[in-house]
Amino acid sequence: MTQLKNGVVKAIYRVRDQKAKLEKRAEGIAVGLTIGTWTDLPQTRHQQVSAHCGQVEGIEIKTELGQDEVIAELTIGYPVANFDDTFASLLTTVFGKLSMDGEIRLVGLELPPDLLARFPGPKFGVAGCRERYQVQARPLVMSIFKACIGLTLPELQEQFAQQAAGGVDLIKDDEIFFTEQYATPEERVDKYREVAKQVAASTGRETAYAVNLTGPVHRLSERARRLSELGAGALLFNVVAYGFDVLADLAADPEIQVPILAHPAVSGALYGGERYGMAADIVLGQLAHHAGADMVIFPSMYGSVTLGKEATEQLLLHLRDARVHKPSLPAPSAGIYPGLVPQLYRDFGNDLIINAGGGIHGHPQGAKAGGEAFCAAVQAVMDGVSLAEATSASPVLAAALAKWGPAV
Amino acid sequence: MTQLKNGVVKAIYRVRDQKAKLEKRAEGIAVGLTIGTWTDLPQTRHQQVSAHCGQVEGIEIKTELGQDEVIAELTIGYPVANFDDTFASLLTTVFGKLSMDGEIRLVGLELPPDLLARFPGPKFGVAGCRERYQVQARPLVMSIFKACIGLTLPELQEQFAQQAAGGVDLIKDDEIFFTEQYATPEERVDKYREVAKQVAASTGRETAYAVNLTGPVHRLSERARRLSELGAGALLFNVVAYGFDVLADLAADPEIQVPILAHPAVSGALYGGERYGMAADIVLGQLAHHAGADMVIFPSMYGSVTLGKEATEQLLLHLRDARVHKPSLPAPSAGIYPGLVPQLYRDFGNDLIINAGGGIHGHPQGAKAGGEAFCAAVQAVMDGVSLAEATSASPVLAAALAKWGPAV
Repeated sequence: MTQLKNGVVKAIYRVRDQKAKLEKRAEGIAVGLTIGTWTDLPQTRHQQVSAHCGQVEGIEIKTELGQDEVIAELTIGYPVANFDDTFASLLTTVFGKLSMDGEIRLVGLELPPDLLARFPGPKFGVAGCRERYQVQARPLVMSIFKACIGLTLPELQEQFAQQAAGGVDLIKDDEIFFTEQYATPEERVDKYREVAKQVAASTGRETAYAVNLTGPVHRLSERARRLSELGAGALLFNVVAYGFDVLADLAADPEIQVPILAHPAVSGALYGGERYGMAADIVLGQLAHHAGADMVIFPSMYGSVTLGKEATEQLLLHLRDARVHKPSLPAPSAGIYPGLVPQLYRDFGNDLIINAGGGIHGHPQGAKAGGEAFCAAVQAVMDGVSLAEATSASPVLAAALAKWGPAV
Repeated sequence: MTQLKNGVVKAIYRVRDQKAKLEKRAEGIAVGLTIGTWTDLPQTRHQQVSAHCGQVEGIEIKTELGQDEVIAELTIGYPVANFDDTFASLLTTVFGKLSMDGEIRLVGLELPPDLLARFPGPKFGVAGCRERYQVQARPLVMSIFKACIGLTLPELQEQFAQQAAGGVDLIKDDEIFFTEQYATPEERVDKYREVAKQVAASTGRETAYAVNLTGPVHRLSERARRLSELGAGALLFNVVAYGFDVLADLAADPEIQVPILAHPAVSGALYGGERYGMAADIVLGQLAHHAGADMVIFPSMYGSVTLGKEATEQLLLHLRDARVHKPSLPAPSAGIYPGLVPQLYRDFGNDLIINAGGGIHGHPQGAKAGGEAFCAAVQAVMDGVSLAEATSASPVLAAALAKWGPAV
């Protein structure tokens, strides 16, 4: 049987096992997780089901542990014909029962174009977001609300105003903001938009608000459309908590005309560790991208707990995979301060969201100054001047460098 | 501030850290994952937000690792007011950002009645399923399709007929059956129902079919209703792959009048290991139950990879938690054969689904005999006779005991 290289999803698993058992194990996965068994099928059915049978694509020993025990990577190919148009079908097949099979981790996933075509991908992508936020030539800058729960609408508006005054492109909700006790998402979108317009008179920029999209699944689309109409700048979405197919529905809905910003909350429960679960670049890179996130927040390399260099690079490759879908904007998060901007530009290039909470609110002169400092740093990089040179025109940048470095 | 014991979700985390840092870490979680910060708030706001602030409920050292490093359990209380009516809000809050914080695992969750009341729970539960399947006094018996992918509708019908002829109460799809190339879920429900009626003439029992509920999220409710109308016996649902709030919508929908059978596919990606992720009893016990699964499949203690005795007991407690919701039926899976039935009854009691694949299809005389052997074993237990005694009236049971034990 000729194997079509298109039309096969390749899953790579890290396992620990006896070297002598690997081949049988791989075969057991390939056959057992597709057609079930060859031996119990009559000859007459073999051809018919063979198009659906998984294949062992490779077995690679990574580490010898002694006493014939090894860490190995098994690559299994699953025919695209076995899936429907959902991430649920993909995950249930490649890491469903198998996820419960002891020490096993899904470390790689190759999705062919004919499978990707079944997923919506981002509606806006990098170019669409740039168009939407009127930022053509530089990285975007996003501030994070310091805290939201328990604050009244006027207090929240004030916090929005202070951040917007710094000239940032986007402001995102705290992703744990679910309570509607003092302010519903609709009220916030409405009020912050007023504030953004007022602030634009000074800054020249109408800051976009990434509102946390919340509530029961069957009401999400309706809410997203409403928030879109009310003027939301983006929809912040806890994709792992809700499910990738829930995101896919939102991305595919033509009446939801606002970019989606995926938050990585709960993803660590899947990717933490090395021996179980699913690699971070799969969860936050591949799945988030192809399910339709226009912008994806993920742990940066500059915080206290990072994904590591290799995982981050792989994640970026996935976000930028433009074979079928528009690329998504990466938004590395944690440990970001103005002095880091040249490094961010070196590590990520221009298509990037510079995303900070403490690095804005913790500025000695407050959030407005914090936003201004980031904008000044970005402008310096775009102008090709060092941050040190830029401080002469920007005291707030000078104060930020004095606090967080680097020393100039 | 008086702490109301109702109205607080308690989350227990296993962490590895320096003993000296535990208190600060716990405080950081309690405050940081709710109101953000005390110190940056003006005094005037303290009372207003205090109702939303998390509390450190306990710090317990579990293991001393030397050099001041320990494994500890931190218990944090989150005010119910911080959540909305979704599992997304619960998970994002108690294990959102925190899941990415290095070596940390969610090992316990206490959900108070006022939070549980926001979730639908099972529509049928144990009593409703017993009523529905007309099985009042004994454990239910369920067969699993051996394989589905690639088979034509007549072949699938034949496999259904063979299993139904064994007199089993339920037959479930292979949970990886997504392709509609040869037979849609609707066609299968319709055809299997015909078959079930025919077989009932011999067995006296109309076997219920647990069809895999598949497809995009926005069409699931419509499909579930349709399958319900066509006569589906239950809806098999890959809840972890789709999301707990997707399940909750189905369970809450009054037009979906058919029990839901949750499959644990993908859950191992969350619970595998000890140092990261979320405990199995939380995922498959608590969340599945309160999201509305009437029946929950989980790895049995008799297979090759088990959850362990303690986790299984905790899982069962959660399924049986009837404070607010109807209890769910446990369906331990893997390594189940007729000779195990008395042990199953001792371990689980009467409210149980005896669920087998290989233990039915692998019977020396085929699937019909396999089902009959299980039914004979169950009858023996209900009659208070030993399996050995029962073999005289049941040659198929004798054959099953000869193959799988125990020796009689």
